[in-house]
Amino acid sequence: MSEQSADFVSAALIIIGNEILSGRTQDKNLAFIAAALNRNGIQLREVRVIPDIEDTIIATVNEMRAKFDYVFTSGGIGPTHDDITAESIAKAFGLSLYLHPEANALLEEHYGENYTPERAKMAKVPEGAALIANPVSRAPGFNIGNVYVLAGVPRILQAMIDGLLPGLKGGKPMLSRSVTTNLREGDMAQTLGALQEKYPDVDLGSYPFFQAGQLGTSIVARSMDEALLQQAVTDIKAMMESMGGTAEEDQDANGNRSEI
Amino acid sequence: MSEQSADFVSAALIIIGNEILSGRTQDKNLAFIAAALNRNGIQLREVRVIPDIEDTIIATVNEMRAKFDYVFTSGGIGPTHDDITAESIAKAFGLSLYLHPEANALLEEHYGENYTPERAKMAKVPEGAALIANPVSRAPGFNIGNVYVLAGVPRILQAMIDGLLPGLKGGKPMLSRSVTTNLREGDMAQTLGALQEKYPDVDLGSYPFFQAGQLGTSIVARSMDEALLQQAVTDIKAMMESMGGTAEEDQDANGNRSEI
Repeated sequence: MSEQSADFVSAALIIIGNEILSGRTQDKNLAFIAAALNRNGIQLREVRVIPDIEDTIIATVNEMRAKFDYVFTSGGIGPTHDDITAESIAKAFGLSLYLHPEANALLEEHYGENYTPERAKMAKVPEGAALIANPVSRAPGFNIGNVYVLAGVPRILQAMIDGLLPGLKGGKPMLSRSVTTNLREGDMAQTLGALQEKYPDVDLGSYPFFQAGQLGTSIVARSMDEALLQQAVTDIKAMMESMGGTAEEDQDANGNRSEI
Repeated sequence: MSEQSADFVSAALIIIGNEILSGRTQDKNLAFIAAALNRNGIQLREVRVIPDIEDTIIATVNEMRAKFDYVFTSGGIGPTHDDITAESIAKAFGLSLYLHPEANALLEEHYGENYTPERAKMAKVPEGAALIANPVSRAPGFNIGNVYVLAGVPRILQAMIDGLLPGLKGGKPMLSRSVTTNLREGDMAQTLGALQEKYPDVDLGSYPFFQAGQLGTSIVARSMDEALLQQAVTDIKAMMESMGGTAEEDQDANGNRSEI
């Protein structure tokens, strides 16, 4: 399936946050978003982690929104001075930021007498943006053009994504199957390379692992064509068995996650 | 400290791998590299996760090596058809790939009669590249210009980084201190914003969390100037206490890692 095909819908993720770049916080959003999009026929093609710097956010958003069908951002939409995502996105689109009446009413009700001007910052979105519901802590994300601006806190981001996905147009889903063997990848490399040539529309990935004292390899096959994928998996298993190895299909279709 | 200062040494990380973008594999390298570089006075300023596509690797490497002092890549240096990093890096530099005699001897000894042409691929580096030792599984990484090409498997990447760091020129280390309070960030936002204006050379980050049924916030202060950092931390604690909140300094200097 070519990436130029109408069935191929692409996405990029921009993780905005000094705390990820400093190593303070271990990112948990990438793998969640990747898997959720994938199940909905949207292929994540690039991720960038950038600092909370306005010019960098503007340049990155403008580059990515021209290049991919969907762009998601995470982080920087809280009430403090270091939360500059909404303002930067507005500037990227050449729009002004305004107090969204619905978001304002929502936060006013939620915070009551503690609804400070700083918290009202969380109700400001670029003109024309649509709100993205936050069932966890109220303060919404927003969507403008093909850009979806989400919270960085994993629990909130996940709830936002779950709410958004049914409304996003996906392409054909990418199907994935995984076969694990006790053979080492270097021993299969030649045959596997020949199989990749035989199946140009199936993406074959080789992932060595070390588990319970044993070396082995998971071969992950991905394709939008179910019949082709079945043929490739049959050939992969036959290759492993002909080399005297084991060949077990993994139930989670993503294969063994342990690593050397 | 300005990023244009000679004391500021910057780095970027390029994570090459379809398995990260598909959500199959949870990245473990970003946080490790960020923290290790930081301890050595090198600031990680951008991370990109890209697929195993030659043109994308070439364009990304060339953009990043012009922009940052150091560029690290992870992934794609194994023996199988989907490992295309070394060849792509050679093309990015306009160099040819050749069988490095030392790497070849190393792998020949390691694999013995199982040293196949596919495994010999792991001994190929761009002309003029220096090897990066791999004490875990032998197959080396390499350094060309300001680009350091590392394995994607975390255990191997970590060993390579540990070996490399003493030889890299760092700037002034970024110092970090963290104070945790039971106050909510929205309640501190105004005062914290004023503190950020008072200390333009201290980077103040606000990170809300939810732990053991309690909401709270960690304020992380980062600066290259120890005296300024001390003053800022004193002010942050005073602010929290004046608002009737707790103010405890975190021992790990990166603060509480739990999140809402």
